[in-house]
Amino acid sequence: MNKGIGYASVGEAIDSFMLIKEASKGLTSGGKPFLTLILRDATGEIEAKLWDATKEDEALFIPEKIIKVSGEVNQFRGKPQLKILAVRPAQPTDDVHVSDFVEKAPVSKDILMDKLTEAIFEMKNPTLQRITRAFIKKYQENLLLYPAATKNHHEYVSGLAHHIVSMLGIARQIHQLYPEVNKDLLYAGIILHDLGKLRELSGMVTTSYTIEGKLLGHIPIMVEEIGLMARELQIEGEEEILILQHLILSHHGKAEWGSPKPPLVREAEILHLIDLMDAKMNMLNRALDKVKPGEFTDRLFAMDNRAFYKPSFEE
Amino acid sequence: MNKGIGYASVGEAIDSFMLIKEASKGLTSGGKPFLTLILRDATGEIEAKLWDATKEDEALFIPEKIIKVSGEVNQFRGKPQLKILAVRPAQPTDDVHVSDFVEKAPVSKDILMDKLTEAIFEMKNPTLQRITRAFIKKYQENLLLYPAATKNHHEYVSGLAHHIVSMLGIARQIHQLYPEVNKDLLYAGIILHDLGKLRELSGMVTTSYTIEGKLLGHIPIMVEEIGLMARELQIEGEEEILILQHLILSHHGKAEWGSPKPPLVREAEILHLIDLMDAKMNMLNRALDKVKPGEFTDRLFAMDNRAFYKPSFEE
Amino acid sequence: MNKGIGYASVGEAIDSFMLIKEASKGLTSGGKPFLTLILRDATGEIEAKLWDATKEDEALFIPEKIIKVSGEVNQFRGKPQLKILAVRPAQPTDDVHVSDFVEKAPVSKDILMDKLTEAIFEMKNPTLQRITRAFIKKYQENLLLYPAATKNHHEYVSGLAHHIVSMLGIARQIHQLYPEVNKDLLYAGIILHDLGKLRELSGMVTTSYTIEGKLLGHIPIMVEEIGLMARELQIEGEEEILILQHLILSHHGKAEWGSPKPPLVREAEILHLIDLMDAKMNMLNRALDKVKPGEFTDRLFAMDNRAFYKPSFEE
Amino acid sequence: MNKGIGYASVGEAIDSFMLIKEASKGLTSGGKPFLTLILRDATGEIEAKLWDATKEDEALFIPEKIIKVSGEVNQFRGKPQLKILAVRPAQPTDDVHVSDFVEKAPVSKDILMDKLTEAIFEMKNPTLQRITRAFIKKYQENLLLYPAATKNHHEYVSGLAHHIVSMLGIARQIHQLYPEVNKDLLYAGIILHDLGKLRELSGMVTTSYTIEGKLLGHIPIMVEEIGLMARELQIEGEEEILILQHLILSHHGKAEWGSPKPPLVREAEILHLIDLMDAKMNMLNRALDKVKPGEFTDRLFAMDNRAFYKPSFEE
Amino acid sequence: MNKGIGYASVGEAIDSFMLIKEASKGLTSGGKPFLTLILRDATGEIEAKLWDATKEDEALFIPEKIIKVSGEVNQFRGKPQLKILAVRPAQPTDDVHVSDFVEKAPVSKDILMDKLTEAIFEMKNPTLQRITRAFIKKYQENLLLYPAATKNHHEYVSGLAHHIVSMLGIARQIHQLYPEVNKDLLYAGIILHDLGKLRELSGMVTTSYTIEGKLLGHIPIMVEEIGLMARELQIEGEEEILILQHLILSHHGKAEWGSPKPPLVREAEILHLIDLMDAKMNMLNRALDKVKPGEFTDRLFAMDNRAFYKPSFEE
Amino acid sequence: MNKGIGYASVGEAIDSFMLIKEASKGLTSGGKPFLTLILRDATGEIEAKLWDATKEDEALFIPEKIIKVSGEVNQFRGKPQLKILAVRPAQPTDDVHVSDFVEKAPVSKDILMDKLTEAIFEMKNPTLQRITRAFIKKYQENLLLYPAATKNHHEYVSGLAHHIVSMLGIARQIHQLYPEVNKDLLYAGIILHDLGKLRELSGMVTTSYTIEGKLLGHIPIMVEEIGLMARELQIEGEEEILILQHLILSHHGKAEWGSPKPPLVREAEILHLIDLMDAKMNMLNRALDKVKPGEFTDRLFAMDNRAFYKPSFEE
Repeated sequence: MNKGIGYASVGEAIDSFMLIKEASKGLTSGGKPFLTLILRDATGEIEAKLWDATKEDEALFIPEKIIKVSGEVNQFRGKPQLKILAVRPAQPTDDVHVSDFVEKAPVSKDILMDKLTEAIFEMKNPTLQRITRAFIKKYQENLLLYPAATKNHHEYVSGLAHHIVSMLGIARQIHQLYPEVNKDLLYAGIILHDLGKLRELSGMVTTSYTIEGKLLGHIPIMVEEIGLMARELQIEGEEEILILQHLILSHHGKAEWGSPKPPLVREAEILHLIDLMDAKMNMLNRALDKVKPGEFTDRLFAMDNRAFYKPSFEE
Repeated sequence: MNKGIGYASVGEAIDSFMLIKEASKGLTSGGKPFLTLILRDATGEIEAKLWDATKEDEALFIPEKIIKVSGEVNQFRGKPQLKILAVRPAQPTDDVHVSDFVEKAPVSKDILMDKLTEAIFEMKNPTLQRITRAFIKKYQENLLLYPAATKNHHEYVSGLAHHIVSMLGIARQIHQLYPEVNKDLLYAGIILHDLGKLRELSGMVTTSYTIEGKLLGHIPIMVEEIGLMARELQIEGEEEILILQHLILSHHGKAEWGSPKPPLVREAEILHLIDLMDAKMNMLNRALDKVKPGEFTDRLFAMDNRAFYKPSFEE
Repeated sequence: MNKGIGYASVGEAIDSFMLIKEASKGLTSGGKPFLTLILRDATGEIEAKLWDATKEDEALFIPEKIIKVSGEVNQFRGKPQLKILAVRPAQPTDDVHVSDFVEKAPVSKDILMDKLTEAIFEMKNPTLQRITRAFIKKYQENLLLYPAATKNHHEYVSGLAHHIVSMLGIARQIHQLYPEVNKDLLYAGIILHDLGKLRELSGMVTTSYTIEGKLLGHIPIMVEEIGLMARELQIEGEEEILILQHLILSHHGKAEWGSPKPPLVREAEILHLIDLMDAKMNMLNRALDKVKPGEFTDRLFAMDNRAFYKPSFEE
Repeated sequence: MNKGIGYASVGEAIDSFMLIKEASKGLTSGGKPFLTLILRDATGEIEAKLWDATKEDEALFIPEKIIKVSGEVNQFRGKPQLKILAVRPAQPTDDVHVSDFVEKAPVSKDILMDKLTEAIFEMKNPTLQRITRAFIKKYQENLLLYPAATKNHHEYVSGLAHHIVSMLGIARQIHQLYPEVNKDLLYAGIILHDLGKLRELSGMVTTSYTIEGKLLGHIPIMVEEIGLMARELQIEGEEEILILQHLILSHHGKAEWGSPKPPLVREAEILHLIDLMDAKMNMLNRALDKVKPGEFTDRLFAMDNRAFYKPSFEE
Repeated sequence: MNKGIGYASVGEAIDSFMLIKEASKGLTSGGKPFLTLILRDATGEIEAKLWDATKEDEALFIPEKIIKVSGEVNQFRGKPQLKILAVRPAQPTDDVHVSDFVEKAPVSKDILMDKLTEAIFEMKNPTLQRITRAFIKKYQENLLLYPAATKNHHEYVSGLAHHIVSMLGIARQIHQLYPEVNKDLLYAGIILHDLGKLRELSGMVTTSYTIEGKLLGHIPIMVEEIGLMARELQIEGEEEILILQHLILSHHGKAEWGSPKPPLVREAEILHLIDLMDAKMNMLNRALDKVKPGEFTDRLFAMDNRAFYKPSFEE
Repeated sequence: MNKGIGYASVGEAIDSFMLIKEASKGLTSGGKPFLTLILRDATGEIEAKLWDATKEDEALFIPEKIIKVSGEVNQFRGKPQLKILAVRPAQPTDDVHVSDFVEKAPVSKDILMDKLTEAIFEMKNPTLQRITRAFIKKYQENLLLYPAATKNHHEYVSGLAHHIVSMLGIARQIHQLYPEVNKDLLYAGIILHDLGKLRELSGMVTTSYTIEGKLLGHIPIMVEEIGLMARELQIEGEEEILILQHLILSHHGKAEWGSPKPPLVREAEILHLIDLMDAKMNMLNRALDKVKPGEFTDRLFAMDNRAFYKPSFEE
């Protein structure tokens, strides 16, 4: 297995380090205990069965632990399953780290940070520039680590920054084609629109929702943060702040999707469209990358459950 | 006309002071200018026509002015219309005031304030009590003046406070019937739930939406206000604040109705139900008050456009 | 296991009487027969496996039978499962009864009956009082036994009467807060609104839908019953009867929820709101009772599939 | 005007008897009173203006009165309007009757009655035959007079009987093509399905909804009537009665359209489909009859607001 | 097993030829391979387990193969399951054919072809007759073989032709009851409406969707085919062709169901209704045929997931 | 009036040529005839009243005629209205043309044609290039004249070509940002996606829907045209053609919006998004151009009836 578990085929022998994502105990019909593990590396994940698991195994093999595992890829109900032949916890001397086993953005954190800085540098409106810069400073570390979502699109390390930078690329072009667009406002909206996720989501790996994420959601969280930050920067009450809060509030497009107000400012509408377009391109390109010409992808839940066709004439 | 314009019948002669709510200019098919005025007193409103209006009339008879008018109630397209025979602007010596011509809550401001104070006094949780008290103090004056909405329910002077106090009454009973309910949390939620309207709406009379009302709405405005107030009071980060923000955020019940999160805490669900119940009772009782047993009310827009029947056996 | 199966934890030994709710036969991959039983007592239920089941076992262990069972609580796919070590049918000498193993209302039948009688006694309109009393007399026995639903809310013995009595409590308070409400009409509507369920549902235990329940439903059944009873009592044609039928017909609130007419009378609207409020409080309080502060409940299907949070500051 | 007002064209002189359907008073911008009348004969209706109307005119020209009118057809906002030149109330000596001015079914009452009798005669199931016959006897007079609806389809004298007889024609054919269908049940369902309209609607001319029509609707009314009639005929409790009630209850097809239960019996589904088909054919044929090949009809509200095209190749 | 697998009961011994519809490999918890087969004959299908499957078994027992199998019908999770005792592939000398194991229309291909020819013979409009005849000629072979759908209704060999002929029967009667209907247009619409399925579906057995079926669908495919055929026959541009394309385009009734235009011509509306009626009768009659009086059918997915009741009084 | 009627303010005198867009006759309450005209020039339109219109006026002043008109801009019910003082039909010697009075794209036809040619020149796939080129050639004249819609967006002369060229601009950028996108396919889809409108719409001025536009719509028309053209060019059956038809078919995004299949190919999804984005930018920019900073636009019907705010900080 050179390329990673995401590329392993049935029958292949496995002998490598992997991260335990989930672990649960079961009993065979004969009453014997076994463990079902979801293992992952940076390229994908696989279900694995550890038969005849002992109490010690149960205590050792828990989520977020790295293991050295050897075994064979079988098929079970149409899906690949790893039959574990030998397994042990990773040792400090193995020099492996959780961050080696998670998917990352295809662009490095340094480049992402450069692109963000460049966009802020282009901005001319001082109010918009100041508040944007203040947030980048406040959240810099996590912003470069967090995914943009728990699943569906940009659900990998640095996914949030990758999504923002990608959207800034579209915004730059849209501004050239339609010069009426207020670039500063659009840039500020793009950079801040999802920062509430840094409080809505639990972290970089095996991401879940925090309590305030569940009870408030990233949109109201960010609207409030802008209010607090504006007071701190003593720019409270300027119209830019209100409009920026509106951009954040409305960026999901309609009430049913979590925006109590629909976009009512030109740049709010564009922010919503660019967000949609980049999320869709990310999902589509990654799904189509895994199939051959003449085939359909799996159904993509966040694309209305559609399966997409990859034309064969492109070969 | 003893009882007010809301009780005038067709054919009746009118000779009284009224407030101009709206004014617009028109031309007869013969090309002559006239004014269409919407006049009101504390009991209701009526459309009036001032034929052969001069330029001076146009300048004199504008919204928010009080006039002395005599005329006759006619019927036009099934609705009453006032034919103006004589009209003049009110003079300082007439000793009439805008506040005489607007509908008011059936309970006085003093009593409403007492009830609010009493509820806060009942609260035992210090965090919830402190933040509630701080808002009452901050907004006391407008809270006792504003309507709860521009139309449909409690759309009169002190309507907001009347709605809050009425909801507190239900809450007290619900807490007795279901003692599991956290009364402090429910009281705080009720008192604060619509305070964002003090920034969403333009004022007490001929109420319209402010720009921040249109772009953000009273729910996100109030969530942000709680965040800012908590920081001021140095109770930021306490769980009560988060839960209280959730109560405000979710009190419209579902995303389509403006709450990005549905109620996910018991008291949030109850707050939503009590809000609904009091708004509906207010609309129903006022509409049924205007019809006789055996009749149907007009269609009530905010009650899904239903016309309600008043049984005749109640006579 | 002192408190009942609803409180048993994994690893605990069980030795008690339980009622078989469901039983089905399976084959292991080795081709050996086993029985899957759903067992219950008054506090909850658990899945159990009886391995190597004989033909005699299959005949003995069928739904509605009481058994004496000893075994151990294991975990299977995240849910508790009882591994049966020994089992036998209950004997007459064991002196256990089906009614010992089902959930019951937290209020006794006698108290429920007293509360119903008291409400009827308060009524002053003779027509409404007579027909309500006639139905209580006709259905007294089942009314005090039936659940209010097969699942979701008040789904226990005497659940229907408990729901009615609880709603009467809210109605009494609502009438005090809004004295325009016709208390007699509201009381009659509350007491009769769900009596059609006595024909829609099959009984007290392992409740299912009858054929007329499936083809007509409890609402049209009850509208018809009122018509028949009014004829019997020779009060057919009085307006109270029509209005009462309307209250029953409209109490689900809208066509999509089974009411061909929405509430068009004040008390019909209130009946609908009180029904909703009591059903929701019942679901919420019972679900929150099972979780600790700082936790979420399971998703509640009849509450739009929401999981509710129990604040930790309430500790 | 030989053919009737439904065929009059702009510019044509009118001199004939017509029935006043609606009358309302207005004031010109000069303050002079006039009457707006909706006049009709058996072929259609037209709006008419009576300028300079006196108090006597107001008292004379009221709904349900027949008048002799002469005037000219003008066009107003794209619709024909009758300018009244002379008008007088009809005299007893004119020998004109309200029934001359209303639209009637294209088939006589005698033939409709014969067809109903014939269908009942074909039925073999004694329970279904008895109850159907009993209702025909109870309602014979009104059944042959009432429209099937206030508007949209079969909204003319004898419209209800015409609709029933037309549906019986389709049912006979469907039974031949699919012999599994229970003809007796389907016939009984068709004959009774809309009889509740005899209580839901106010009468034959200028039909409106009764109070019980508004509060209960024809479907629950008829389900109840079947229950009462079954008790009278002492066939209460037979399964045919339950199934027949289900057919009535479900014939609108789904909850949103007023059927709390959808069709759950084969003949209930067919009844729903035949009802739909005959109503649609009635609307379509009458609308297409009024346009020329190559033209579109007006938008038909009850056909989802569609305008239908009449192909020109059919000429 | 005389009547076929659709009629086999639990405990019955099986010894017959069957067709493999699906095959998948699994592993027991002990790690031993087995095959899960879906087997079918002309009366129905059953799941079967072949334990201890070898690599040879895997290669031999694949979809579309006929096998000779003996075993016993067991029950597994409430559904019948065949336990295979012996199995071998069919030999040429067995003289069994795939077509023996699939469901067929209850009417022979010859009779279906006669009925189609007869309908075309009745048509008088030369344009409509020519194009209909041309398509019958082009697609004759497949038209008599294909199902009308992959599931739900007429999902058997010759199902498409059976559906068309059945619809023509209804159309003939509708035309007699409503003589305004253009019979030629309706016949042409019925015969052609689903011919696009010959390109949308993959074939007669184990039918799936083709790529053009997935990307275009049978409706746009057939609209295009009519355009191409009209050009070939040099009748392009005649109004009949446009109207016929409209009938095809609109026959699903509304946009959500795949018709970009709703029916806007009388015969288009009727075509839609007849299509619906025949599909529903086919589903209903076949489902009710499998249950006894007093029972409900399984839920029928394409009938809004309803379970239908078969009255017991019909016995 | 230098800038055109779109910029005229109340009280301004008008003396210029205008095109009659609509004309209808009315009667004053005194019974005198007048004409209501909708007049337009290249900047907008206004309602005008011609009082005391003669029969000759009626015959002269009809849609599509150019007139010389002098008058004054009044206000009527809040909207500007032109009071005509003098009017005459335009003469040949006036040298004015219908094309002078209609709105046009802000880019010339020559430039639009160059941009189209350039895009086709960039394409490398011969099949896609050939069919695109063939359509440009077939429809060149109308493609450069037609609007993209009857209202809402690009509803002006050359609007269709302007929309296409604008979309090509976005596509070029999207391809650079996401190089996986097949540019040839996307270009071909963009150029052809709305060509069906050349048959759906009646023409350049006072555009309405043709009969085939109403009965089929531009999407199925274009899918068929591609089929016919592919046969002509002998490239029928190549996968590019199928995919291209899919792009056209799915470009409205979902069934409710007229696409029987949703986008199932990457470029189909992008085509839909770009179409949406350019249409929205066109509507937004034109609406915001008409208001001042700090104001809201009128409600934009095709933007979900939203009124957009123009921030004042942009001044």
